[in-house]
Amino acid sequence: MFYFIGLGLGDAKDITVKGLEIIKRCSRVYLEAYTSILTVGKDALEDFYGRELILADRDMVEQEADEILKGADVSDVAFLVVGDPFGATTHSDLVLRAVNAGIKYSVIHNASILNAVGCCGLQLYNFGETVSIVFWTDSWKPESFYDKIKRNRDMGMHTLCLLDIKVKEQSMENLMRGRKVFEPPRFMTVAQAAKQLLEVVQNHREREEEPAITEDTVCVGLARVGADDQAIRAGSLREMAACDLGAPLHSMIITGHLHPLEVDMLRLFSLEGLGNLKMTDSSTYIS
Amino acid sequence: MFYFIGLGLGDAKDITVKGLEIIKRCSRVYLEAYTSILTVGKDALEDFYGRELILADRDMVEQEADEILKGADVSDVAFLVVGDPFGATTHSDLVLRAVNAGIKYSVIHNASILNAVGCCGLQLYNFGETVSIVFWTDSWKPESFYDKIKRNRDMGMHTLCLLDIKVKEQSMENLMRGRKVFEPPRFMTVAQAAKQLLEVVQNHREREEEPAITEDTVCVGLARVGADDQAIRAGSLREMAACDLGAPLHSMIITGHLHPLEVDMLRLFSLEGLGNLKMTDSSTYIS
Repeated sequence: MFYFIGLGLGDAKDITVKGLEIIKRCSRVYLEAYTSILTVGKDALEDFYGRELILADRDMVEQEADEILKGADVSDVAFLVVGDPFGATTHSDLVLRAVNAGIKYSVIHNASILNAVGCCGLQLYNFGETVSIVFWTDSWKPESFYDKIKRNRDMGMHTLCLLDIKVKEQSMENLMRGRKVFEPPRFMTVAQAAKQLLEVVQNHREREEEPAITEDTVCVGLARVGADDQAIRAGSLREMAACDLGAPLHSMIITGHLHPLEVDMLRLFSLEGLGNLKMTDSSTYIS
Repeated sequence: MFYFIGLGLGDAKDITVKGLEIIKRCSRVYLEAYTSILTVGKDALEDFYGRELILADRDMVEQEADEILKGADVSDVAFLVVGDPFGATTHSDLVLRAVNAGIKYSVIHNASILNAVGCCGLQLYNFGETVSIVFWTDSWKPESFYDKIKRNRDMGMHTLCLLDIKVKEQSMENLMRGRKVFEPPRFMTVAQAAKQLLEVVQNHREREEEPAITEDTVCVGLARVGADDQAIRAGSLREMAACDLGAPLHSMIITGHLHPLEVDMLRLFSLEGLGNLKMTDSSTYIS
């Protein structure tokens, strides 16, 4: 059997009892290492599981998939994924290869940031499409995430923004010279995401389009959700651009219409009050 | 500390190692028993945890919240929730009461149906707003879920439909006579949900409005996600209305635009092929 096992979001102990039992009996255990990270590293996981882990970066998963699946028809092999195995990435390619090779597979689910953000008190029902915010470069500043946030807000929905992760990146020079030298990993902070968003808002103003969000729109910044030192802050987009939530991973929510109970929950995490919320009707607020 | 602990979706072993350790040291452990169920009952959980569980139904959580929180400022109390603690229900009321009473709280996350549905191969990024489909009665047949499905489909997004659960319901007669006699629990099946949806489609045709979905729209039925005997079927809405996925809980997805890789994944679970998918552009399909 080939097992896709979710590790959850915090540390080594966030694996399920079922997942841990499977890991202990597998012949090989891979750790997918490019879509997300825990607050602990490979060593801590190996200590806790009592097993050696094989790091599987993107190249390996894409180019050596058959190697990863090898023998899973006659013994058990596990592929560990931070969060839920089918959260941010579906790993459909591995599933389809397994099925085509006559290998049975099984999924051991776990928490994903997509549901765990509910801990800030915003109703998961009220979220629209999830967006990704990527690191801008000097020459590439895509604004497509903004359109989705606008569409969600037009319908009163909140937007979960997943923030960029860059691991095993090569500098342009190293890439051109074919040198396998990698830059240190980078994880976008809530402050960086908020600054990019403020720039998009400003761009809209300069084009004389009314922006769908403003500096006062209520946002929620989340860091290390599920870990002992998780941080949640609610405040205006302007406040988000100035806040330091510490070590990765970070995520940000742009709120839509807020139910009074959601407002009560956000106050538990609020920076300077919640800005200038306006009643939209008898039951919801918007900023 | 007051702990909200997610139990995940399958059986007793789907709890996290962290969650299990906490349960073992708590002075009292409640089991929330009205938003979802596992494939095993309270007895199996008590056996596995080695702890007695106090069943907390909706009345108890709403009316005896202070009793549940009692002593959590000086000892540890756990409140177990199937899935993720802040998935379908936020339990914001309990959180706010705890904070107001000066009680610290902590959340131990776990898988929720909202992210676990990714196992069918549909990208979670491509889901719009989640909807709930409730049991119709002779006199009450709300169609509001249909409008949300339409809105999601108009944007090419999939819709996760959570299906109704009725526990501790009283018959009208018992309610009027004040008799605390409860009906057997009811869990909506995929077939029942599909039949209600087909009726809505028919109602639209009778009003000469073109329905947003048809009998041929590709849907996915899921049952007991995360359990050993989970069932996933992809097929037309018509096929869903006739399929038997066995014991609860069931969920259903109405697809929007399908990426070719999503189609490949759905074929693994398909009933009669995937009906008449049409290309919408070079990269997606719609039914």
